Amino acid sequence: MPALADLSNADLAGLAADLARDVEAFRARGLKLDMTRGKPAPEQLDLANAMLTLPGNGDFHTQAGEDARNYGGLQGIAEARSLFAGMVGAPADQVVVGENASLALMHDCLVWALIKGVPGSVRPWGQEPGGIAFLCPVPGYDRHFAITEGYGVRMIPVPLTGEGPDLDAVREAVKDPAVKGMWCVPKYANPTGETYAPHVVEALAAMETAAPDFRLFWDNAYAVHDLEEEGDALANVLDACAAAGNPDRAFVFASTSKVTFAGAGLSFFGSSPANVKWYLANAGLRTIGPDKLNQLRHVRFFRDETGLAVHMGKHRALLAPKFAAVEEALTARLSGTGAARWARPRGGYFVSVDVRAGTARKVVALARELGIAMTPAGATWPGGADPKDENLRIAPSFPSLADVRAAAEGIALAILACAVEAEQQARGEGPARA
Amino acid sequence: MPALADLSNADLAGLAADLARDVEAFRARGLKLDMTRGKPAPEQLDLANAMLTLPGNGDFHTQAGEDARNYGGLQGIAEARSLFAGMVGAPADQVVVGENASLALMHDCLVWALIKGVPGSVRPWGQEPGGIAFLCPVPGYDRHFAITEGYGVRMIPVPLTGEGPDLDAVREAVKDPAVKGMWCVPKYANPTGETYAPHVVEALAAMETAAPDFRLFWDNAYAVHDLEEEGDALANVLDACAAAGNPDRAFVFASTSKVTFAGAGLSFFGSSPANVKWYLANAGLRTIGPDKLNQLRHVRFFRDETGLAVHMGKHRALLAPKFAAVEEALTARLSGTGAARWARPRGGYFVSVDVRAGTARKVVALARELGIAMTPAGATWPGGADPKDENLRIAPSFPSLADVRAAAEGIALAILACAVEAEQQARGEGPARA
Repeated sequence: MPALADLSNADLAGLAADLARDVEAFRARGLKLDMTRGKPAPEQLDLANAMLTLPGNGDFHTQAGEDARNYGGLQGIAEARSLFAGMVGAPADQVVVGENASLALMHDCLVWALIKGVPGSVRPWGQEPGGIAFLCPVPGYDRHFAITEGYGVRMIPVPLTGEGPDLDAVREAVKDPAVKGMWCVPKYANPTGETYAPHVVEALAAMETAAPDFRLFWDNAYAVHDLEEEGDALANVLDACAAAGNPDRAFVFASTSKVTFAGAGLSFFGSSPANVKWYLANAGLRTIGPDKLNQLRHVRFFRDETGLAVHMGKHRALLAPKFAAVEEALTARLSGTGAARWARPRGGYFVSVDVRAGTARKVVALARELGIAMTPAGATWPGGADPKDENLRIAPSFPSLADVRAAAEGIALAILACAVEAEQQARGEGPARA
Repeated sequence: MPALADLSNADLAGLAADLARDVEAFRARGLKLDMTRGKPAPEQLDLANAMLTLPGNGDFHTQAGEDARNYGGLQGIAEARSLFAGMVGAPADQVVVGENASLALMHDCLVWALIKGVPGSVRPWGQEPGGIAFLCPVPGYDRHFAITEGYGVRMIPVPLTGEGPDLDAVREAVKDPAVKGMWCVPKYANPTGETYAPHVVEALAAMETAAPDFRLFWDNAYAVHDLEEEGDALANVLDACAAAGNPDRAFVFASTSKVTFAGAGLSFFGSSPANVKWYLANAGLRTIGPDKLNQLRHVRFFRDETGLAVHMGKHRALLAPKFAAVEEALTARLSGTGAARWARPRGGYFVSVDVRAGTARKVVALARELGIAMTPAGATWPGGADPKDENLRIAPSFPSLADVRAAAEGIALAILACAVEAEQQARGEGPARA
């Protein structure tokens, strides 16, 4: 398929007519497809169904002999901290196990920072005259942005490059002492799928920041979520920070939400000894201890890191075909047209698509007419405002493979139809879609 | 036994000598007893062991057909909200189910109030010029006080009367608009065991408060934790608040921590529609949803409110003899001496003892010499400072019945020995203990 820009007006009009017929035909299929949410499919959750009867009859003692049913154990049981330490990238004694949502740990860290500050703070973040700001690599995760927005933290978008955030933009921004933190999904970023390159991790760890208490909120949500057998390698940010003389710079978060049960997994916080001490001091006001039985349940289910790796291989077998179907549909309809650029992620849960600028909202609206629910355009930007109106997030994990295939075909069709229309309008040709 | 005050100096000296011998004999037993923590005994936890294999093979669908393994369902599954609505005293649609710790819900409510305010707030509590204050009925729960202390909230002790807080003191204190909240354990209060009388609940609901956004933090931790078949009746604070025209005044908290597993139960928040909406809006920033499998686990285990009541009867059968042993030991050694007043709670987890003023710390120290760990004196007061140094909290739930009996005998002995010594010193008689 040639680039739209190279088509004659007549050819463009002919293509528009073909696409209008395809749109009608697709609409006539009366599909109801949901591509909005990065949540595991039932088949993925089934992989962990053995946990529904764990830890098992009379099984409630930890290795250390604690009664996992009772109160206590604020940091989490040792065997769970060991099992998942690799996922966090911290020694087990610098890992804290939380409840079912790592988002909650990020929320709590921000809230405690606002009210009390973090190690190295001159004053609580909430008492900084003029407020504070967070760097937000874009496109990014809407629930991150919702937390910072919800607590009145200014958000500064910084562009992603394919190997992490644009370092020049970041280095410039952190000269402002109001910039206290940065949201990062360093591996298989949501939604771009990119993994921060080693030199990027190192630069973020080593760069000079005007704020002495600057923190990377390092949400390693997809630490073990490879779509290929040999996944991306992510440099260890805690090691990099320590090596650069900024040992307390990173708060690392991870979870088993997309490993075992999305609603009943474990979350993890890992950081420097000083940060872990700070975290536990605050968490100790909030709770006597975490749900240790769910920790034991996870330990009994996986046994060891090999068990975890084998399990993730089963996820991969279910997910990879869905991502392949999206890639195939986008390629079939859009390759060479210049109507879109899209990611070919090697892991994670999303395919990020940049459509023709100014058409993302229209694509979502047209997809809806075709029976396909998509994540709202703009959702990947702070405040829901994508300045170029071009980024879309496709979440292929939840629907069946057949549905993913159909939906991806419909989305590709909508993208091309909107691009053709925009091209016609740009040339002053053709009727605008009503 | 006659009152110490009525003994002659010689009789007092004789008693002191007897007690010194008893102390030596007790110490020689070399016991190691722990009466510090209000946690369930292993036998109580065993009552819920069937939950270790629940929800069970392939059982993960809620009544509404949701997949309890996946994300979502912020408020909690309908059947869990219904099952425990009675414990909370709110309709199921005004109940939110949280993770394993109601303390965490209290913490979060305070934190959100500090950063954002509550319905009816003129500004966030944390931005009130001059700070804010909470009323703290004393003696009370140290973890409540730790939260308010931890967030810089001033704490104003108000005395308990045996049927709830002294209303004159409360009414006077809430004339100060800085007083934004009040900690309440309204049923079988920790540690006094008293239940707020209906007229007290009504008065707290109806009283005029200078702060328009005053909140009762109503920790109904022992809602179903009766030590007698017919437990105390607690008036419904949400109904009372609504009837008094202050529908948003109470945040109600409860949990199954002392019903199923102390570390792996469910927590509950119940309040007015406006407060629930506020709660969910904030919680929605923090998490996508709670652990719904643990909710299903509880529902499968209890089935209905009758199942819950039957289960609490089994707890009662284990706990009541331990409380009886404490009562017996205290009565045997202290009755009539005037050396102590103690509660005879009809539920809950503690026996509160007021010893001779100025001796509580000494009693704890002497008990330690006897091999008995007690909750530190003062722990039941804000900041850990009991102005009269007289209140002790005995927690008889965790040790075996034999241990509770031995420990209570040792504590009674320590109380009397310290009282006799103090009486001698007051008279200028007898040697001070080294």
